[in-house]
Amino acid sequence: MKDIQIRPAGDHDFEAIWSIFSAHVAAGETYPFTTATSREAGHAYWLGPDVASFIATSGSARVLGMYRLTRNQVGRGHHVANASYMVSPSAQGAGIGRMLGEHSLGEARRQGYLAMQFNYVVSTNTAAVRLWKKLGFSIVGTLPKAYRHKALGYVDAYVMYQLLQDPDHWPTVDS
Amino acid sequence: MKDIQIRPAGDHDFEAIWSIFSAHVAAGETYPFTTATSREAGHAYWLGPDVASFIATSGSARVLGMYRLTRNQVGRGHHVANASYMVSPSAQGAGIGRMLGEHSLGEARRQGYLAMQFNYVVSTNTAAVRLWKKLGFSIVGTLPKAYRHKALGYVDAYVMYQLLQDPDHWPTVDS
Repeated sequence: MKDIQIRPAGDHDFEAIWSIFSAHVAAGETYPFTTATSREAGHAYWLGPDVASFIATSGSARVLGMYRLTRNQVGRGHHVANASYMVSPSAQGAGIGRMLGEHSLGEARRQGYLAMQFNYVVSTNTAAVRLWKKLGFSIVGTLPKAYRHKALGYVDAYVMYQLLQDPDHWPTVDS
Repeated sequence: MKDIQIRPAGDHDFEAIWSIFSAHVAAGETYPFTTATSREAGHAYWLGPDVASFIATSGSARVLGMYRLTRNQVGRGHHVANASYMVSPSAQGAGIGRMLGEHSLGEARRQGYLAMQFNYVVSTNTAAVRLWKKLGFSIVGTLPKAYRHKALGYVDAYVMYQLLQDPDHWPTVDS
């Protein structure tokens, strides 16, 4: 695909976001949410305070996918970013996930984050695991049977992580 | 210490909870919160919806410590519990942490959780790591430099985990 742009998401994007989110949730293979998730909860997740979300659009303005970036912990952990990604089912296989991943790493660095952590990568989502490894993440933890996969039952989830800056140049901790 | 009881926490316990919480937060060695944490945020953390908190009290009704139990993820991860613990600085070394830990594992089983996960155990908090291992947890992940320790700078944090029920007897995933 060409003419793909990634830009900040706003409230006017919510219907498109909700549509992609709902498709992933219904599949029950990658994210913890179930189909019982309310629109309000979905809105808070993608467009709530302390969340920076971005969408990939094609020239025709169709939303192809999105990611959200936020801090993984408050306070003494707020130098570590967290991010989540979803690609429209009709746009999968076209490299949108990789574009979103690369954009999110740049955006996290731009926002001053020193590392990025994924808390809950479903182990059977091998395309995602492969992509995150290509983009510099390592599996730093395995959570036994932590994900209730709709088709496969209880499967492991991974914690993935990467430093975004050389620790020798991290700001000093002064309080 | 004797005559220690563990009971559900309520709003009337909040001043005692806040006092212990504030002491830990000021130390900056174990939890992500900073001293900028508002009372409202502290109240939501310990006594908010979807949180079950318990306190240990002595015969004199003094609060010696507390823990909070909640689900670690929504939906497809809601079979895994999460818990956090704080012991009053003046009651440390008396086995309160162990009592709270054992109580929380029993309570988690009673509530039907199938596993328990700690997302963010500071690696330099060796007393806690030792205790959780004694109580059946394993380190399943290491998060490099994920905690900004007040005295020691950036230190690793651990993800710890244990199954609470034999997986052969876990309920079937049906949706």
